[in-house]
Amino acid sequence: MGLALRLATRGKGRTSPNPMVGAVVVSGGRIVGRAYHRKAGEPHAEVLALHQAGPRARGATLYLTLEPCCHHAKRTPPCVPLLIAAQLRRVVVAMKDPNPSVHGRGLQALRRAGISVSVGCLEEEATALNRIYCHWVTTGRPWVILKAGMTLDGKIATARGESQWITSPEARREAHRLRGEVDAILVGVGTVQADDPKLTVRVPRRAGMTDMVRPWQPLRVIADSNLTIPSTAAVLSRRSLAKTLIATTTKAPLRRVRNLRNAGIEVLPLEPQQGRVPMGNLLRELGRRGIASLLVEGGGTLNAALWKEGLVNEVRLFVSPLLLGGQDAKSVIGGASPARLADAVKLQGLRVRQVGSDFLVQGLVPPQSTSRRH
Amino acid sequence: MGLALRLATRGKGRTSPNPMVGAVVVSGGRIVGRAYHRKAGEPHAEVLALHQAGPRARGATLYLTLEPCCHHAKRTPPCVPLLIAAQLRRVVVAMKDPNPSVHGRGLQALRRAGISVSVGCLEEEATALNRIYCHWVTTGRPWVILKAGMTLDGKIATARGESQWITSPEARREAHRLRGEVDAILVGVGTVQADDPKLTVRVPRRAGMTDMVRPWQPLRVIADSNLTIPSTAAVLSRRSLAKTLIATTTKAPLRRVRNLRNAGIEVLPLEPQQGRVPMGNLLRELGRRGIASLLVEGGGTLNAALWKEGLVNEVRLFVSPLLLGGQDAKSVIGGASPARLADAVKLQGLRVRQVGSDFLVQGLVPPQSTSRRH
Repeated sequence: MGLALRLATRGKGRTSPNPMVGAVVVSGGRIVGRAYHRKAGEPHAEVLALHQAGPRARGATLYLTLEPCCHHAKRTPPCVPLLIAAQLRRVVVAMKDPNPSVHGRGLQALRRAGISVSVGCLEEEATALNRIYCHWVTTGRPWVILKAGMTLDGKIATARGESQWITSPEARREAHRLRGEVDAILVGVGTVQADDPKLTVRVPRRAGMTDMVRPWQPLRVIADSNLTIPSTAAVLSRRSLAKTLIATTTKAPLRRVRNLRNAGIEVLPLEPQQGRVPMGNLLRELGRRGIASLLVEGGGTLNAALWKEGLVNEVRLFVSPLLLGGQDAKSVIGGASPARLADAVKLQGLRVRQVGSDFLVQGLVPPQSTSRRH
Repeated sequence: MGLALRLATRGKGRTSPNPMVGAVVVSGGRIVGRAYHRKAGEPHAEVLALHQAGPRARGATLYLTLEPCCHHAKRTPPCVPLLIAAQLRRVVVAMKDPNPSVHGRGLQALRRAGISVSVGCLEEEATALNRIYCHWVTTGRPWVILKAGMTLDGKIATARGESQWITSPEARREAHRLRGEVDAILVGVGTVQADDPKLTVRVPRRAGMTDMVRPWQPLRVIADSNLTIPSTAAVLSRRSLAKTLIATTTKAPLRRVRNLRNAGIEVLPLEPQQGRVPMGNLLRELGRRGIASLLVEGGGTLNAALWKEGLVNEVRLFVSPLLLGGQDAKSVIGGASPARLADAVKLQGLRVRQVGSDFLVQGLVPPQSTSRRH
């Protein structure tokens, strides 16, 4: 199973919204098939591994990092019938598929066909590996990563909004790499107006890949309640390879909606919440479109909107060794502070590592605190 | 010299305002004397080492971490005449004494007496060891350490001022230990009103010292422009072993000054600067009193007053894995942010280590940035 998990990670950043899955077929103490899921739309890991094993799969044991699928509403046929046809003797899975369309039904079908089934081997590792998939498939919303470059005193800009550059070139490169790992990027229109970012991936997607292949580009999502985005914004450029979606409210002037649509930009009007783009609804809409992971590169206002609704799952803060000072300098999470200190969120699984002259602080927002703050 | 430096560090936290000094006497390739300066008012390291060496000092080499003194305006007699009387052949010092009353004159006197003198051996290490002394003796102000317990987003309290407790018990213990290493602690009256701290050292002064001897207590300094300190404040308690100095302005009501003085509390009125206690003058006054190191445990307003005048030399930030959020939550350095991002201060010699569930981030404010912001 350890090998299967290592195989699974090879699909990192390319399987979305599918999970990463690894499969190993063992017959008579020897590995006769091994594979991983490479890309959404391509064959599942177990199919590839069984294909490799051929007739040796008969009576063999299949180690699989995720329960095999048994449902039809997707691009590839279900795997369970194939596993049964291969006459496996035993299937060991790390975890059940949290997808409500599967969730144990795949295993049930295998058992009914007389195959011995074990579940839970290295379950914790498998769950951590597919954190994003599990979240998306159970909540319908993308896994939200809040990313920011900030000073040691938590400031992302001066009071006047100057933010370039707080972090080192190495940290900015690492942030680009992170863009290559997600399905979409979200910023507020304020960031577009202040920095006019391209929001594209301009480094090789994976460390070690030195050839400058044109990388896959995440969807760029701009939250813009009144459609005040300048028509000259870099994210609206027709020459860009990345797609842009402008999330707005129904109170936005129709003329502007039309102008943007005529320019080939997708506009998504939503019912406003307190005059603003409703974050929960936006995330559900993105989830429906198969966006399983979302990187938020917003300013303090956008960050606060997501934070307060408990929609942030992970933070990645690039912390520079600078002290800016000033109550009025822009805080990484803006808005009003919670009434009690007990409402602060304690990050889990905190990791700190040096990136150039900065520190990358990475942590998970515990699920209790997201639901508590809803 | 390495040994002399190691000996010097044994005096840590007890020599102030004197420097830490170590001395080793070597004769015929053998160590015949070794000592360190234990405490202000007690004999200097070179005197102790020469005493140990006795007649063997004749023709020997003395390794000394700091230029020996040649001036009289202090508690102990000058050392240079003793060194000459001991008939040393050679004196190796790590650094000149930055004290304007010495600064090379001690070495000059030795040379004139026919003793061979070298200077600069492990100078960098010696300078770092006596950073506090060097600062105090050259500027007349104490070395200022800004200490704070804050969230990952740089907040020391909620908008309403709730701050207990952001950091872990381990971090608070470490902060107590830090109090035991300085000559004085400074807070604003706002902190007294909000938290009513005792500001005493309530842990053994040095790690490893487990016996609960009654520790030496640093002077408590309260910045209180209008003398609004409540008479019931813990820092005013007669039962406390620590002394308190209240720094105020000449606009404070005389009646309150008198009441406090009658209660045995020292009150220091200074000409106000923009209605507040003038930080530069306060530090100079503390420096005159032999306070070579000052720990600031203030709120954002006091921190900002010192920060903006470039009076902070070192920061020690206990950073908890909490995210509080809120533009209005109290920032570690309050007030107005600098106009340009280029005015942010890049900390030097940054060190990060885990303390309980928190991180202690420690760094030096480069001298250029302190003078630039004057």
